[in-house]
Amino acid sequence: MLPLRLRRLTQLLSRFPGVGEKTAQRFALFLAQAPELSEALGAELSSLQDAVGPCERCRGIAEREAAERDAAGQDTAPPLLCQICRDPRRDSKLLCVVSRIQDQIAIERSGAIRGRYFVLGRLLSPLDGVGPGDLPLELLLRRIEQDQVKEAIIATPPSVDGEATALLLAQELSKHGVVVSRIASGVPHGGDLEFADQVTLGRAITGRRNIEVR
Amino acid sequence: MLPLRLRRLTQLLSRFPGVGEKTAQRFALFLAQAPELSEALGAELSSLQDAVGPCERCRGIAEREAAERDAAGQDTAPPLLCQICRDPRRDSKLLCVVSRIQDQIAIERSGAIRGRYFVLGRLLSPLDGVGPGDLPLELLLRRIEQDQVKEAIIATPPSVDGEATALLLAQELSKHGVVVSRIASGVPHGGDLEFADQVTLGRAITGRRNIEVR
Repeated sequence: MLPLRLRRLTQLLSRFPGVGEKTAQRFALFLAQAPELSEALGAELSSLQDAVGPCERCRGIAEREAAERDAAGQDTAPPLLCQICRDPRRDSKLLCVVSRIQDQIAIERSGAIRGRYFVLGRLLSPLDGVGPGDLPLELLLRRIEQDQVKEAIIATPPSVDGEATALLLAQELSKHGVVVSRIASGVPHGGDLEFADQVTLGRAITGRRNIEVR
Repeated sequence: MLPLRLRRLTQLLSRFPGVGEKTAQRFALFLAQAPELSEALGAELSSLQDAVGPCERCRGIAEREAAERDAAGQDTAPPLLCQICRDPRRDSKLLCVVSRIQDQIAIERSGAIRGRYFVLGRLLSPLDGVGPGDLPLELLLRRIEQDQVKEAIIATPPSVDGEATALLLAQELSKHGVVVSRIASGVPHGGDLEFADQVTLGRAITGRRNIEVR
């Protein structure tokens, strides 16, 4: 009984991550009754792809300046770079490799990386048929050479796929003389040991560090 | 560190019902990486308000046909009516009064109403300062007169505000000779008496019905 237009809208909204049919319909009805918001969102989305795109260096998200937008598509267009890759104060010899843009944003929020990033876009996953050839290894190695990267921190998630990817990257990058490290895995800050799962506790103990006493 | 455009998009998306800052940012990043979906959604939303609007009879959601869209705004434009109000097979003497369009859709899906609807848009709520003057009573009474409504089913939710609204509507409509009833409240179909709350059980017992044995 929903009008065709709202059914179409529901169908599009149900493709959002974690949004099912019911929530999508709720969003669609809400938008139908919020003219100002749906106009603003419509305009924002219609021009989104002209304004943002993958960073040509780190594959993160970059935004085109107004002037660049006019030049886009022309031969003279400058490369599209994200804010981090544009920042000259960043140490380009330190590279943090992440799986997804979301992870890059989370790490950046922690302020723990003063270097730059590389977004893989995916992880090795034998079960889903994702092999080494499906990872952007060539792009990563070119980056290592161009920037003369000395140290790489592999920040893929502590999962089976994440660990396998980290191992592959460590093998490839160390061939090029890069010091490769892996982010620590253990009990999270504020976490309760009683409720931590076995794997996390095992990792926390295997990955223990000496306390230096002077 | 999110580009300005994505922060703006996040801000708009965080106005969706039940969506917080984190989920909105997740949606925004997803859309930035889904060009085809964000274009389609942008086009859909930009033209949404031209295509749908409140039904002039029941205040539900109505859709303009292509031909009607051209006439919209002109003096000769036909009234905007929803599918239910257009349907001549519906009994206009039976009116179901609901609080929200979502409730109308849920009832319509049950197939239990062969009449028409009226959407109040809000409920009496003394705590939020919503009094009888804030309800579209005049519109409802005009509807009652025009359609010569004989029976009204008040389907506001079984909450304090919903009951207060039902009582007010019953008083007003019965003055106009309309038989007014209230939807039943009790243990839901498939529900477990053990886990039903006290008020629901109390209502189920107060609202008991005789079992007719022949």
